[in-house]
Amino acid sequence: MHSSESTDLSSAQPTVAYDSILDLAPYQTGKPVEELTREYGVSDVVKLASNENPIGCSPAVTLAITEQLGQLSRYPDGNGYYLKQGIAEFTGIKLDGITLGNGSNDLLDILARTFVGTDDAIVYSQYAFVVYSMLAKMQGATGIEVPAQRFGHDLDAMRQAVEDNANTKIVFIANPNNPTGTQLERAELRQFVASLPSSVLVVLDEAYTEYSPESNNRALLDEFDNVVIVRTFSKAYGLAGLRIGYALSSAPIAGLLNRVRQPFNVSRIGLAAAAAALADQDFIETVCQTNREQMQWLEKQFDTLGLGFIKSHANFIMVEIDDEDTAAINQALLEQGVIVRPLVGYGLPDWLRITVGVAEENMRLIDTLRSILTDD
Amino acid sequence: MHSSESTDLSSAQPTVAYDSILDLAPYQTGKPVEELTREYGVSDVVKLASNENPIGCSPAVTLAITEQLGQLSRYPDGNGYYLKQGIAEFTGIKLDGITLGNGSNDLLDILARTFVGTDDAIVYSQYAFVVYSMLAKMQGATGIEVPAQRFGHDLDAMRQAVEDNANTKIVFIANPNNPTGTQLERAELRQFVASLPSSVLVVLDEAYTEYSPESNNRALLDEFDNVVIVRTFSKAYGLAGLRIGYALSSAPIAGLLNRVRQPFNVSRIGLAAAAAALADQDFIETVCQTNREQMQWLEKQFDTLGLGFIKSHANFIMVEIDDEDTAAINQALLEQGVIVRPLVGYGLPDWLRITVGVAEENMRLIDTLRSILTDD
Repeated sequence: MHSSESTDLSSAQPTVAYDSILDLAPYQTGKPVEELTREYGVSDVVKLASNENPIGCSPAVTLAITEQLGQLSRYPDGNGYYLKQGIAEFTGIKLDGITLGNGSNDLLDILARTFVGTDDAIVYSQYAFVVYSMLAKMQGATGIEVPAQRFGHDLDAMRQAVEDNANTKIVFIANPNNPTGTQLERAELRQFVASLPSSVLVVLDEAYTEYSPESNNRALLDEFDNVVIVRTFSKAYGLAGLRIGYALSSAPIAGLLNRVRQPFNVSRIGLAAAAAALADQDFIETVCQTNREQMQWLEKQFDTLGLGFIKSHANFIMVEIDDEDTAAINQALLEQGVIVRPLVGYGLPDWLRITVGVAEENMRLIDTLRSILTDD
Repeated sequence: MHSSESTDLSSAQPTVAYDSILDLAPYQTGKPVEELTREYGVSDVVKLASNENPIGCSPAVTLAITEQLGQLSRYPDGNGYYLKQGIAEFTGIKLDGITLGNGSNDLLDILARTFVGTDDAIVYSQYAFVVYSMLAKMQGATGIEVPAQRFGHDLDAMRQAVEDNANTKIVFIANPNNPTGTQLERAELRQFVASLPSSVLVVLDEAYTEYSPESNNRALLDEFDNVVIVRTFSKAYGLAGLRIGYALSSAPIAGLLNRVRQPFNVSRIGLAAAAAALADQDFIETVCQTNREQMQWLEKQFDTLGLGFIKSHANFIMVEIDDEDTAAINQALLEQGVIVRPLVGYGLPDWLRITVGVAEENMRLIDTLRSILTDD
């Protein structure tokens, strides 16, 4: 495919590294509030589409950012020393086992680049975070999607997939899983890791772990060198706008990830904000309690409306719209200023993923949903 | 190298995608001020090591950031609509030809991932930005370093390198070049691009272009679909701490880059700050004028001290230390609180790269340097 093999050089085009890159669909982000206002003229929009923290972030963050405003022209600390020190104290993982990322997406990306070549495979579950399959395409590697079991990970089938594909380098497991909210039992997950060859990396994506202590599998790192845990400040910590994530792993793996990552991948403001946010665990407690209460309230409302849902361990819930046209209902919600996430892209056309908001937002959602369903 | 081919699974380790990843040396960042204070107990440190803007950034940036503080828990606009609109107006490139990056490093990275596979090659010059060769290693590709000509790019030799390596996918050209400060003539560069097959991407790294209007080769984009221009807000705009860069290209190329980049690669604060900074071109004028005046003053001082230097078109200057031990002089500078950049890693052990500071900083540098050289 190189130009030199062609006879007409002038018309040749740059070609992509791997044909699979051409299959990449642009990532569908949650509809921005401004867009809805522009399109439908609705103000007072409620966005429950991107699993953001409706409470915001710790008030300590503002001060931490303000302190950086005189230093914006200076590069961030490429080693992220102070933030890593906070993470080390919080997790009990030493500094040399920590890698910082521009959001946890950056870390998933770095992991794939470091360990997955064109001859390799990545294993992940059906209905798991869409980025895993995109990474396989970017690396020109094989992506192996294992059918889900009751909307969650089928670990036996995933183990079998690894056995069947000797070139598997990474298994991605989101726990709790996005978009389904399902969670794996700790013992079951430990057994799964123990059953794999130690040359296969198990990447646990714990983006939502703060909402469910049971999903914290930090202890696996003491036992297995081939486990990497990836976390984010975008969810419970309420810093999605600033892009900070971290990975916990063995020191040799962190050593590699830190070479492949861009030297200044986390901004000066991101580093300072995340350190301040991590130090305010009281805020996280409030966030989780509100989420629990509001989740219970939502579940009750869905029951009343006769809508099925999947028990969720995170800050969102997947609701089944028992209707021929989920898209129409999503559209009606949009027109009334409520943004939720349709899951057609995940192969779940009958479901909507709804982020748990604060009380007023959830009431608005339910009232709007009820009026739409009643009109039907 | 896969575990399954080994007999002892338990001792197998995850292996990197490409052996060349093991050759990656961690990127050497400029020594942080805090580190110097810790190590040598010097306060009042002058940092002229990372080509940062000593004046800071536009005062409009603070307001733009403050406006975002209530929205930190919300994801940034993944399309960066408002910033792209500003860049489109400023450059005359339409929105669909713009790609945003987490600093320009991110864009160099995305370009390599999109176009360079394991069978491909990247061509760059000796004494060019060290990230180009690192990208070849990360992609498991071939990096071809072309010997420099009077510390600048030897375009004839680079053309020959492309001809000799039919698998060349990208030629990286930094203009002005870091760390040498050299600049290519516009006509010469145009001729170089015209002489290459259109299947080879020419990536012009214009990180320092604001300091030298002659280095702006935006016009090439009207003529050649295989040219990509990469720029940054980290230098003249004074936003190194926030990580924002942009790439200008044809729409089809931008379409690919935008699929490979992470969906939220630029932070909410970065987007807002860059848009405000771009709108304040008066600030850029002040920055460039100060840089010109101070550069002239520094050149005069180096002449007086009998130190050779390379004529620079950016905000830094490379000075030859005619001494057996450049490292010792660098060390003496550090101990007296002046941080500059030794260039051993660039194969230039006799040279120091010095960022042009404001008047007081440059005087401090020269006074310190004079006292060290006189003591010798």
